[in-house]
Amino acid sequence: MPTHEFVLANVENGVWIESFDLEPSAQLELAGSDRWSVTKRRLHGGLSDGIDVVTLDNGELSLSVLPTRGMGIWKGQYHDTELSWKSPVAFPVNPSFVDLFDRQGLGWLNGFNELLCRCGLSWNGPPGMDAVEDEDGNSTESELTLHGRVANLPAHSVVLKVVTEGKGSISVTGVVDETSMFGPWLRLTSTVTLQAGSNEFVVEDRVTNMGGTVAECQLLYHTNVGQPFLGADSRFVAPIRQVAPRDERAAEGIGDYSTYRGPEAGYAEQVYYMDLKPDSSGESSVLLRNSAGDKGLKLSYTTGPLPCFALWKNTQCEADGYVTGLEPATNFPNFKSFERRQSRVLNLKPNESHECRLRFAVYDSADDVSRVEGEILNLQGNSHPQVFDEPRPEWSDVGA
Amino acid sequence: MPTHEFVLANVENGVWIESFDLEPSAQLELAGSDRWSVTKRRLHGGLSDGIDVVTLDNGELSLSVLPTRGMGIWKGQYHDTELSWKSPVAFPVNPSFVDLFDRQGLGWLNGFNELLCRCGLSWNGPPGMDAVEDEDGNSTESELTLHGRVANLPAHSVVLKVVTEGKGSISVTGVVDETSMFGPWLRLTSTVTLQAGSNEFVVEDRVTNMGGTVAECQLLYHTNVGQPFLGADSRFVAPIRQVAPRDERAAEGIGDYSTYRGPEAGYAEQVYYMDLKPDSSGESSVLLRNSAGDKGLKLSYTTGPLPCFALWKNTQCEADGYVTGLEPATNFPNFKSFERRQSRVLNLKPNESHECRLRFAVYDSADDVSRVEGEILNLQGNSHPQVFDEPRPEWSDVGA
Amino acid sequence: MPTHEFVLANVENGVWIESFDLEPSAQLELAGSDRWSVTKRRLHGGLSDGIDVVTLDNGELSLSVLPTRGMGIWKGQYHDTELSWKSPVAFPVNPSFVDLFDRQGLGWLNGFNELLCRCGLSWNGPPGMDAVEDEDGNSTESELTLHGRVANLPAHSVVLKVVTEGKGSISVTGVVDETSMFGPWLRLTSTVTLQAGSNEFVVEDRVTNMGGTVAECQLLYHTNVGQPFLGADSRFVAPIRQVAPRDERAAEGIGDYSTYRGPEAGYAEQVYYMDLKPDSSGESSVLLRNSAGDKGLKLSYTTGPLPCFALWKNTQCEADGYVTGLEPATNFPNFKSFERRQSRVLNLKPNESHECRLRFAVYDSADDVSRVEGEILNLQGNSHPQVFDEPRPEWSDVGA
Repeated sequence: MPTHEFVLANVENGVWIESFDLEPSAQLELAGSDRWSVTKRRLHGGLSDGIDVVTLDNGELSLSVLPTRGMGIWKGQYHDTELSWKSPVAFPVNPSFVDLFDRQGLGWLNGFNELLCRCGLSWNGPPGMDAVEDEDGNSTESELTLHGRVANLPAHSVVLKVVTEGKGSISVTGVVDETSMFGPWLRLTSTVTLQAGSNEFVVEDRVTNMGGTVAECQLLYHTNVGQPFLGADSRFVAPIRQVAPRDERAAEGIGDYSTYRGPEAGYAEQVYYMDLKPDSSGESSVLLRNSAGDKGLKLSYTTGPLPCFALWKNTQCEADGYVTGLEPATNFPNFKSFERRQSRVLNLKPNESHECRLRFAVYDSADDVSRVEGEILNLQGNSHPQVFDEPRPEWSDVGA
Repeated sequence: MPTHEFVLANVENGVWIESFDLEPSAQLELAGSDRWSVTKRRLHGGLSDGIDVVTLDNGELSLSVLPTRGMGIWKGQYHDTELSWKSPVAFPVNPSFVDLFDRQGLGWLNGFNELLCRCGLSWNGPPGMDAVEDEDGNSTESELTLHGRVANLPAHSVVLKVVTEGKGSISVTGVVDETSMFGPWLRLTSTVTLQAGSNEFVVEDRVTNMGGTVAECQLLYHTNVGQPFLGADSRFVAPIRQVAPRDERAAEGIGDYSTYRGPEAGYAEQVYYMDLKPDSSGESSVLLRNSAGDKGLKLSYTTGPLPCFALWKNTQCEADGYVTGLEPATNFPNFKSFERRQSRVLNLKPNESHECRLRFAVYDSADDVSRVEGEILNLQGNSHPQVFDEPRPEWSDVGA
Repeated sequence: MPTHEFVLANVENGVWIESFDLEPSAQLELAGSDRWSVTKRRLHGGLSDGIDVVTLDNGELSLSVLPTRGMGIWKGQYHDTELSWKSPVAFPVNPSFVDLFDRQGLGWLNGFNELLCRCGLSWNGPPGMDAVEDEDGNSTESELTLHGRVANLPAHSVVLKVVTEGKGSISVTGVVDETSMFGPWLRLTSTVTLQAGSNEFVVEDRVTNMGGTVAECQLLYHTNVGQPFLGADSRFVAPIRQVAPRDERAAEGIGDYSTYRGPEAGYAEQVYYMDLKPDSSGESSVLLRNSAGDKGLKLSYTTGPLPCFALWKNTQCEADGYVTGLEPATNFPNFKSFERRQSRVLNLKPNESHECRLRFAVYDSADDVSRVEGEILNLQGNSHPQVFDEPRPEWSDVGA
């Protein structure tokens, strides 16, 4: 039997495993590595009290997945290189301690420290009052909080899978419901997979409208990376069709949008919106590489379901969070009502799903980084990026 | 000794039992059934993390009580028939994850899925800003959230009792404090009792003003039922003196207020307010019966402490929550300030209590359903219900 | 080795001890007492679910410290005398159940019942909208809630220390981060120490700006005492330079500011602001003594870092919380923007710390109380307190 399943949590059936350890055994071997492992722990104390952490290790690359925080990926490690950033929020925060309405709707920031954090499912972007008209012209107001609810919703089902076919792989699947009585009911089913011995991990998500009427949906993958990938003169490499600053602050740096500065106290964030070019399979790739060119993180994803890309440059001093965000999304992270007018809000019919696929690869040799950079430049080809010096009115709320 | 007590939780004394199982034994037998049991479990994972569930089973009927959610009753089962409804919120939600201020004061809906959910204790009804004048004419504003706090407050004391007298019974008593420094301090002491082998359960509640000054109190029993009791052509049977629609939407359906439609996507709720007739013992009864007349749920309660009754018809499609609410209460669920003007807000003196008693009986045979319906019609007698086509200004906030 | 360390919680390393007990042993003896002990428990059930309690007992005096509630001190006991008050909130409340925005920003009161509760770290005082101008003249608004966040933030590190030198001592140190992405990052490191066999406990706190830019800081020690120290004709004794009522309500009682009334239903709180005189070592002391003069609680603290003192008289009936507050602070507990204008808000540079030291001593004999009262009167000396009949405009927001 090529697939072994282990239920780590299932609220419906009253199943929940406090502590779990899996290692290679005579009964369970993967061809790709003899050092893979899976562990599951519950954290206690501080704001992390009650946080479940599932750590997948394929022998080369390890990832800590947080079912308690919407299947976010806390951090990773590839050989000796950490995949993470240092947020002022040092540890995973149990959503029970997060008041999304804190700081005038910015409470999401009180728990923000992951390598990969989803923004959605009903909305993402800044907080504010969203007025929606129904078919009869009646307006309903909703108070949106920064980046939505999903990152602060725990999975009610967590299943580990070990597949022995080929090189073998380990994966964890979590199911998260964003719902309310009289509200939309969106279900995220997220699977993170590592092939044994590989430098890659794959995120496959499905968002399903479980309700009986059409539901709006927005989804953004807030992928956050710090040192050693990010540093002075690190570079962002991508096959860009168009790029524009989000606002005047970003416009100041449009000439250097693809390079980074070192940590600076008081640096104000700059965000660039982009339209990226997919390859013939429909996938596009971006690379963050350090100045020396011997550390690189590549994010590849299917652009169809995620047509928008935002680059978040936040090169503040280390203590305040030196980080950049690589953010494929269904939309640009403007306020939802603006995105709705731009037709960048999904409308899912009952039982309709939206599926996204992202692949992350880590490189720690100059050869590999150089090769990957070449592949992306090759995809860019002769078509130079169209660079807008000012915010585009159809992309940015501030551009009007 | 006819009474056996088991302390499942007592915060004051540092007692809390993670897992508890009780079954008939040579030392503990009940004449009414040899298949009764009590279990207590803690749920983990998802939004249910930390929820305690006490399941009472009298051999015929089982109930899952939630001390963590204000002694609400999650669901039940009588023989093969489920006593529940399918909320889009699939599992019990720990109040630590519920922000009552979410959705402009409708956050209560994020955790709403019980068979029996109390609305109170200081207020129930819709959210809004309640201005209260004190004796000196000073106005204080309070921001009320939908249906109050009590359903999202955990019991700090949970005691199981097994009484061997007569047929024998099992019961659980929880104590819930709704309090704050400089706020009212209302204590709910709730006991749910099942006689061994019976098709009934009894809820006996006492709300006590523990504070040093007069405290306002409102209490509504949001009893929520879905299939198989509810379905197309199910009927609501009650000894009605007066019935009126809550608002214009309900007025549209006043001609069919006592019958139900099948599930419909987009159905907008209809609510009917009623004055019910008690029998000579002071108890009134309502029945929800299915179209075939072979499934029925009867709710009997003492009308003195609960003079108002609301019927909530919410026959949305199954995915959005196909459900009806049978809701005896101290008041009609209008905004508190309106109810105060109508003298339908209790004023409890220090140490004064308000006691309520509700009995629920489940029937799964045509004979029983028919008999119970007959009893209610008999109580109605020749006095036809007075049916108001429009909202009554003294019952509905919108009627003015 | 004179110091023994026990890590009770360390989120970073995944350490957390559910239950801990330490008593004198052949390997661990303290000269000052052979009856000392330390226990650590986790509470379950009610709103206390998930609360960790560390109880230090030096053989004469015991204290219950709450790492889960910002290292607040729940209660204590000296011989047969309880150090506590009876809040309507009977048990410690897990911050996950506290919505600071409840009751228009007064949600802090939903969890308020400690003997010692810190108000801070970024602000204390009443709720409201605080507008701050940055260097460029841009105004940012922050919605402040009553008395800040720190009392509702759990410690992510808890370490017990037993020192065998001299009489020996037991202490617990907790580390609490008040932080957010894009927010200030203030770290409280708090140590509570009891010397074996002593009637004293010492609180040593350090607040450090962990962020990369200057951060504001306010800190108030809300020390709350009820019976038997507080009662009719109890007295507050302190070396006062100046004392003024906070507002008109307090002005009514300025003639009796230092004496207390018995419990009265409906009593409205009175608060007095003071400038206290330190001794030659920089420490000042206040005493709360009962009418009989045989129970006394002395609070001594270094006035340099805590130049302001507030006396909170809240002699409501027992059921509503009969209590007085002795409150040394960096500021007076007015709204933050007023305190900022009065230059009573700290500005901590990156890595700068603010250190406070408070000593509490309990007395249960007339001789001791009389002696301590004499010491304070001696410090007062011939310099009579300057008593303001009305609020001072530089001390009170309402005085303008």
